[in-house]
Amino acid sequence: MRLVDQYRHVRHQTNVVCQPLQIEDYMAHSAPWASPAKWHLGHTTWFFETFILIPFVQEYHAFDSRFNFLFNSYYNAVGDRLARAHRGSWSRPGVSDIYRYRQVVDEAIIGCLSVSEEQIPQEIRSRVVLGLHHEQQHQELILTDLLHHFSVNPFCPAYTQRRPRPSTPVEALHFEVFQGRIAEIGHVGDDFAFDNELPRHRVLLHPFALANRLTTCGEYLAFIEAGGYHDPKWWLSDGWDVCRANNWEAPLYWRREQGKWHRFGLHGLVEIEPEQAVAHVSYYEADAFARWSGARLATEFEWESVFASATPEGSFVDSQTYEPTTLRAIGEVWQWTASAYLGYPGYRPFEGALGEYNGKFMCNQFVLRGGSCLTPSSHFRTSYRNFFSPETRWQMTGILLAKDVLR
Amino acid sequence: MRLVDQYRHVRHQTNVVCQPLQIEDYMAHSAPWASPAKWHLGHTTWFFETFILIPFVQEYHAFDSRFNFLFNSYYNAVGDRLARAHRGSWSRPGVSDIYRYRQVVDEAIIGCLSVSEEQIPQEIRSRVVLGLHHEQQHQELILTDLLHHFSVNPFCPAYTQRRPRPSTPVEALHFEVFQGRIAEIGHVGDDFAFDNELPRHRVLLHPFALANRLTTCGEYLAFIEAGGYHDPKWWLSDGWDVCRANNWEAPLYWRREQGKWHRFGLHGLVEIEPEQAVAHVSYYEADAFARWSGARLATEFEWESVFASATPEGSFVDSQTYEPTTLRAIGEVWQWTASAYLGYPGYRPFEGALGEYNGKFMCNQFVLRGGSCLTPSSHFRTSYRNFFSPETRWQMTGILLAKDVLR
Amino acid sequence: MRLVDQYRHVRHQTNVVCQPLQIEDYMAHSAPWASPAKWHLGHTTWFFETFILIPFVQEYHAFDSRFNFLFNSYYNAVGDRLARAHRGSWSRPGVSDIYRYRQVVDEAIIGCLSVSEEQIPQEIRSRVVLGLHHEQQHQELILTDLLHHFSVNPFCPAYTQRRPRPSTPVEALHFEVFQGRIAEIGHVGDDFAFDNELPRHRVLLHPFALANRLTTCGEYLAFIEAGGYHDPKWWLSDGWDVCRANNWEAPLYWRREQGKWHRFGLHGLVEIEPEQAVAHVSYYEADAFARWSGARLATEFEWESVFASATPEGSFVDSQTYEPTTLRAIGEVWQWTASAYLGYPGYRPFEGALGEYNGKFMCNQFVLRGGSCLTPSSHFRTSYRNFFSPETRWQMTGILLAKDVLR
Amino acid sequence: MRLVDQYRHVRHQTNVVCQPLQIEDYMAHSAPWASPAKWHLGHTTWFFETFILIPFVQEYHAFDSRFNFLFNSYYNAVGDRLARAHRGSWSRPGVSDIYRYRQVVDEAIIGCLSVSEEQIPQEIRSRVVLGLHHEQQHQELILTDLLHHFSVNPFCPAYTQRRPRPSTPVEALHFEVFQGRIAEIGHVGDDFAFDNELPRHRVLLHPFALANRLTTCGEYLAFIEAGGYHDPKWWLSDGWDVCRANNWEAPLYWRREQGKWHRFGLHGLVEIEPEQAVAHVSYYEADAFARWSGARLATEFEWESVFASATPEGSFVDSQTYEPTTLRAIGEVWQWTASAYLGYPGYRPFEGALGEYNGKFMCNQFVLRGGSCLTPSSHFRTSYRNFFSPETRWQMTGILLAKDVLR
Repeated sequence: MRLVDQYRHVRHQTNVVCQPLQIEDYMAHSAPWASPAKWHLGHTTWFFETFILIPFVQEYHAFDSRFNFLFNSYYNAVGDRLARAHRGSWSRPGVSDIYRYRQVVDEAIIGCLSVSEEQIPQEIRSRVVLGLHHEQQHQELILTDLLHHFSVNPFCPAYTQRRPRPSTPVEALHFEVFQGRIAEIGHVGDDFAFDNELPRHRVLLHPFALANRLTTCGEYLAFIEAGGYHDPKWWLSDGWDVCRANNWEAPLYWRREQGKWHRFGLHGLVEIEPEQAVAHVSYYEADAFARWSGARLATEFEWESVFASATPEGSFVDSQTYEPTTLRAIGEVWQWTASAYLGYPGYRPFEGALGEYNGKFMCNQFVLRGGSCLTPSSHFRTSYRNFFSPETRWQMTGILLAKDVLR
Repeated sequence: MRLVDQYRHVRHQTNVVCQPLQIEDYMAHSAPWASPAKWHLGHTTWFFETFILIPFVQEYHAFDSRFNFLFNSYYNAVGDRLARAHRGSWSRPGVSDIYRYRQVVDEAIIGCLSVSEEQIPQEIRSRVVLGLHHEQQHQELILTDLLHHFSVNPFCPAYTQRRPRPSTPVEALHFEVFQGRIAEIGHVGDDFAFDNELPRHRVLLHPFALANRLTTCGEYLAFIEAGGYHDPKWWLSDGWDVCRANNWEAPLYWRREQGKWHRFGLHGLVEIEPEQAVAHVSYYEADAFARWSGARLATEFEWESVFASATPEGSFVDSQTYEPTTLRAIGEVWQWTASAYLGYPGYRPFEGALGEYNGKFMCNQFVLRGGSCLTPSSHFRTSYRNFFSPETRWQMTGILLAKDVLR
Repeated sequence: MRLVDQYRHVRHQTNVVCQPLQIEDYMAHSAPWASPAKWHLGHTTWFFETFILIPFVQEYHAFDSRFNFLFNSYYNAVGDRLARAHRGSWSRPGVSDIYRYRQVVDEAIIGCLSVSEEQIPQEIRSRVVLGLHHEQQHQELILTDLLHHFSVNPFCPAYTQRRPRPSTPVEALHFEVFQGRIAEIGHVGDDFAFDNELPRHRVLLHPFALANRLTTCGEYLAFIEAGGYHDPKWWLSDGWDVCRANNWEAPLYWRREQGKWHRFGLHGLVEIEPEQAVAHVSYYEADAFARWSGARLATEFEWESVFASATPEGSFVDSQTYEPTTLRAIGEVWQWTASAYLGYPGYRPFEGALGEYNGKFMCNQFVLRGGSCLTPSSHFRTSYRNFFSPETRWQMTGILLAKDVLR
Repeated sequence: MRLVDQYRHVRHQTNVVCQPLQIEDYMAHSAPWASPAKWHLGHTTWFFETFILIPFVQEYHAFDSRFNFLFNSYYNAVGDRLARAHRGSWSRPGVSDIYRYRQVVDEAIIGCLSVSEEQIPQEIRSRVVLGLHHEQQHQELILTDLLHHFSVNPFCPAYTQRRPRPSTPVEALHFEVFQGRIAEIGHVGDDFAFDNELPRHRVLLHPFALANRLTTCGEYLAFIEAGGYHDPKWWLSDGWDVCRANNWEAPLYWRREQGKWHRFGLHGLVEIEPEQAVAHVSYYEADAFARWSGARLATEFEWESVFASATPEGSFVDSQTYEPTTLRAIGEVWQWTASAYLGYPGYRPFEGALGEYNGKFMCNQFVLRGGSCLTPSSHFRTSYRNFFSPETRWQMTGILLAKDVLR
C-alpha cells in the first residue's frame, strides 16, 4: 500500500474507533493514568504536526501554537506540557475544534505524501510510519481508557452491542517442552520496528516449557476461590501491598452480583464465561497465579523464540469483537512476561526528541507480548514489546504460563 | 408573584446562566471542591424530585432511580452518593438527558403548583421555596466553578463579552463610628429564610467603626507591594502555612504578565483596575490585609446591625455585569466577617433530611455577608449568612474593613 | 511567693513530671502533632533564654546558637525552625545535654531574679511569669504526648502505678436553669492572664441550662451502644468524615478486649469505670453525643458566667491521680465549648514575638474550659481559654452538657 | 572457624558497630525506609530466636512473646508486624532490655552449637549461617541508617573520628574490552550463598568494555557543573520526575557551603575530595551520569564475568575507614548495574518463611554488585547480589562505567 493510503487508512481507523462516542464521552477522564479521547485525538495529530509539518513543510503554520502545551505527552525536548492529571480539565478547544485540527493536519500531510513513493524524503517517510504506529497505539488506549471511564459510571454504558459468539470447547492445559539453545531475538528485516525491538541479538535460552494456550477465566476463578487474594505466600512483597491496599479480590472490572461473577467490558456488564481468556490482571496477579499454579511466567525471550514466526490470526481490533475470542497467544490479550523492560544489548534510541519514545521508560516496567483484541493487526509484530508497570490492570492484560525444565 | 411563576422564573434563570456553554463545558471539572455544570443541573432537579415529587406526588415515578446516587450532594439521610471528586468522571447521562430530566421534573412540579395559591399544601410550598433558593445558590456556583475551570485552560476562554463601563472616582476611605448597643439579629418576617438566619435574637454590640466602602484592588495591591505575602506577622498561623504551601502571591486569578497585574474573570484576562473592589481573596488574606491596614474585619453582627435595612442596590447577577461595579457593601463581593459560622442561640435545623442543609457545616467556616455580583438579587437578604472555610478563594469574596473604638 | 521561688517551683515541677521517664522515653515521638519530652524540656528553656536572657542580660551568651533552630516552636519572628514532624529525629544533643542547658539557663534566670522584688524590671517580671505559665502548659503536654506514645506501644507501659480510689456514687444528671443577663467575661485583676482572656467585656446571655456534672463513661457508652458512631445524623459533616475515615468506634484509647471496654491511661490499660468522667473525645464526638442526648455544648460565655467565682477544687495534676476522680467542672477534664476560638472585642496580642503566642491560632479551633487532672492548679483560672482543633483527641478532653431554655 | 566461633564473632561485631552510640542514638528514626539501631539489634536476635530456638530447642521459651510483633520485618508467614514507619515510636523495651534479649538468645544458640561440628543438625547449621549473613547485612544497615539520622541533625554529629589518609593519584580512566562469550554466572561451591545467587547457569555475553576504576567525585562534579541535574535528556522519565520532585542537585549528603561542595559522612561534614569514589547516588543518577559520559552501566553478568575470581581487597568495614579509600570495584561502594533484580533461570527460594528472604522482592529493583566500605568482608562474595529500588540513595552506592563494543 502506498504510504499516503496507509496514512489515510490508519487515521480513518481512529475515527472508526470514536464513532460510537457522544461529545461528552470525549471529555471523560476517570483516572490520572488515563486520558480523554479528545486528548488522544489531539495528541496523535500534534505528533504529525510537530515532528513532520513544522520541521519539514515550510509553508505550514502551526494550527494553534497553544496546542503544543496541551498535546505534548512527555517529550521534554519539545517544551512544557499539561500535567497528565489535568488532561480532562479543559473544555475548549471543543471536540469539533479537534476534528478540524485533525483535518487541517491530514490535508497537509497528505499533500506531502501525494507524490511518487520515491520522492518522499526518507526522514519524512520514517516519521510518518512512526506516527502511524503511534496513532495505532493510541487507538488501543482510546478503547482501554474509555472502558475504564464507563466502568466507574453507575449506568454501566456499553461502547457497542455484543455479537453472538459460538462457544468453543477449551483444550486441556498442557506444557510443551522447548530445548535450550541460542536464539536470535529482535526485529529482522526492513519493515518498521520500534527502537526497543533492536538490535537483533542472540540470547542463550535454557530448556523451558510453555502452556499450549492462555489462562482462562475459569482457571483464574479457581485461584480466587482457593483464597489466592488472601494468602501472601503467592505474592511478591510489593504486589501484596498493592493488593491489600486496594482490596483487590479479582481482576479489574470483575464484580460479584447476585452471587455470580460478572465482568464489565466494552459490551457492558456480562457474566463471566469460564472458557474465555482472563484479562485485566496486573503483573502481580499474573505472577501470583503462576506461582499458585506451580508454574511461572515466560521470559520475553522464551516467548519470542516460540512465536517469532507464528501467523498472527487472533481477534485483534479488526474483528470488532472487542473481547478475547480464542485462547491463542496472539491477538487476544497481552501476556505479562517475567522480563523487566530494558534495552537490548547495543540498544540505541531514535535520534532527537523521538528518542524519548521508548528508552525513557526502561525501569520499573515489565514486558508484555502478544497483542490484544484491541490492537490493530497491522500494528503488531512478534518482536513487539509492550510495557507497563506491574500494578497496571486497565490494559487488556492476561496470562500465558511457563515452567522450568529440570536439567 | 404566584409560586408557580416564581418556579418558572428561577428555573429559567438557570438556563440563562448556562446559555453560553458548549456541551464540553458542562463536563468541566477542574478542582475537587468544584462541580461540573452538568452536575449542578442534575442536582438542583434531583432536589425537587426527591423532596417533593417522590414523597408527595403519588403518580410520579422516579425519572431514573440511579440519579439518586449521582446527584445527592451530602444528604446522608437520602442514601449513598458519588464522591465529589468524581463528579466529573461520567459522561452519560449526557447533557441532553439532563435537560430532559429537568423538563420532566419541571412539568410535574408545575402541575402540582398550577392550582390556586391556597390549595398548595404548606409543606410543598415551603419545600418549593427552599428548592428555589437552593437553585439560586447553585446558579452562583455554576458561574464560580466555570470561572475556575476556564482559569486553568491555557486558552483563557471568556464566558461572555465585557460591557464598557464608566470609570467612577473612588471615594476616600473613612470609618464611620457606631455606638455600642443591643441589636436584634436574624431574619424577621414571614418570608423565606434559611434556618441558620433564625431565631432572631439580641446581641450586645460594643462600639465599632466600619469602612465607608469595600477594599479596592489598588489598596490590596499596596499590600502585595509592601511584601504582605512574605511577612508572617500579618497572618494567622494556619493562613501563613496555606499561603506558603501554595505560593500565594496575590488573589486567586491575578497574574502578572508583561510587568502588569491582570485578573482572569468571566470576561477573560483583563488588566487590574485599581478602583474596582478586590475579589477572590481567602479569609486568611482578608484578615492579613486588615491587620496590615491597622484594622480588622467586622463581625457578622456588626455588619447586620448596620445594613439590616439597607436597600439592596448592588450589581447582583441580574445586571449581567459578572464583576463588581461599585464599592457598596451589597451585591458586589461577599465580605468575609470575623465571625465563625455557628448556630444562633436556640438554633433549630429544618426537620428531616433538609436539616442537613446548613447545620451540618457549623465548624471551621467563617460567615460572609453582602451578596455578590454573581448572586441573584431575589435570593439575597441582609440577614443572609454565606459561609466557607477560610482558605476558600474561588468564590466572589472580598473585604470590608472595620475597627475597634477605644472606650 | 517571691518570683524567684515561683520560678524554682515551676521549673522543678517539670523535673517531677519527667521523673519516671527512661532516657529512651525522652525521644519518643508517636504522632506529628506531639513532641518528645526532650523537645519540651529544651523548648521551655529556650523560651526563657530567648525572651529574657538574650535581650536583657548582657553578659549572657547563648548556650548553643543552634538550639534556636531546634527549639523554636512557631515564633516566625524568631527565625527558622525545625518542622514539628521531625522533632523526634535527632538524638544529639542528648538528654543529659538538655538537662545541662536547663541548669545553665536556670542559674542565669535565678541570678536575675535574686534581688528584691521591686528591683526586677517590669518587662522581665512579666516575661518570667509568662514563661512559667508556658512551662506549665508544656507540663501538661509532656504527659499527654507521653500517653499517646505509650498507647501505641504493644507493651502498654504505665507512667505510674494507680492508687486505689474510693468509688463514689454518681449524682443523677439534671440541668440547672440560668436566666438571660449581661455578664462580664474575661480576666479581672492584676494577676497574670494570657492576652486571649482580655479585655474583660460584657456579653448578652440568653437563658440556658447547664448539667450539674460532667458526662460519665457510662453515659457515653450508651451512645456507643446505640450506634452513635454509625449514624451520620448526630454528626457535623466534617466530623462524620473524620469519624469514618479513621474508623472511630469509641474515644481515643478505648479498646474492647475480651468483650469488655478498657481504656489506656497513664496507669496502663484499665477497665472502663462507668462512673468516671469520659475523656479523650474530640469536639466532633462531644457535639454528636450532646445532640444525641437532646442537649448541646455550652458556650464559653455560659460556662464562665456560671463558674467565674467557683473554687477550683478538682483533681489537677497536683493530686498526682493522673485521671479524673470527680465529676466537677474544674480540674478533671477540659470541656469542649460550642464557641469558636476568636479574639474578644478589642483584643490586642502581646507585643513583639510573644504576640504570636495566642492570636495566631484564632481560626478552626474551639475553646475548652475547666482545666484537667493533668493541669497544674496554679496554672488555672476560670477565665482560662484552652483551644484545640475539633478533631483533637489526645488531650484530656471531655463533656459538660447544656440546653436551650425556650423563651 | 568453628560455627560457634563464627557466631560469637559476628554477633560481637554488631556490638562493635554500636559501640560509639549513645542511648538516644539507638532510638533515632529519620526516614520511613530506615530503622533505629534498637530495632536492628532486636530484629537480628529475633531471627535466631524465631527460626532456630523456637522450632528446634524444646526447652527454650520465648524471651517475650510480644517481640514477634515488634521485630518481624516482613515475614508474612510469621504473623503480624509493626509497620516500618513506626519502628521509631516505642521507647520500651529499652536499649538495655534489648541487649539482655541478645544475651539470652546468644547463650541459647551458643549452647546449641557447643558440640562437635558434626553433631550440629544440618538444618540448624544452615539457619545459623543464614542468620549470621542476615546479621551482617544489618551491620551495614545500622551504619547507613545512622548516617541518615545524623545527616538531618543540625549539629552534624560524627560517628567516629576520621583517620588521616594518604592522597593517592587517580589513574586515568580507560575502558578494557572483553570479548563476547558464554559465561558461568552464580555461586559455585558448598559455602553459603543466598538463594538468589543460584542456580549457577550460563549466560551469553556480547562484547563489552568496562572502566578500569570507579567514578570519582571529581568526575561526578563535572556532570553537576555541566547542568546534568537540569537537563531531562540524560534521565529516565521516572528518574527525572524524582529528581525534580525532590530538587536533587547533587548526591545525597552533598552540601554546598561557603562556595564549596562538602559531603556529610560518618566522620561529619568534610570537603569533597575529587579523587574519592562518588557515593550515595541513586540508580537514576548513575544511569544519567553514564549516559552523559557516553557510556552505560554494566549488566550484573558482565560485572560478575570480570570479577568472579578477583581478590576482595577493598576497604570493607573491617578497615574501619567508613569511607571509600580506593577506586577498586570491590569493597568500596556498591555499583548499580543495568540489570533488574530477577530470579536466575530455575531459581528456587529457600523453603518456608525463609523463602521470603529474597524472592519476594523481585520487581522494581536493580542489582548492585561489589560490596562497600561498610560491608563486612567475610559477608561478601563476587556472586553477591544486592538490590534496591532505583531512587535509593542512602546506601553506599556508586558507579562503575561500561560501554558497548560495536560488532
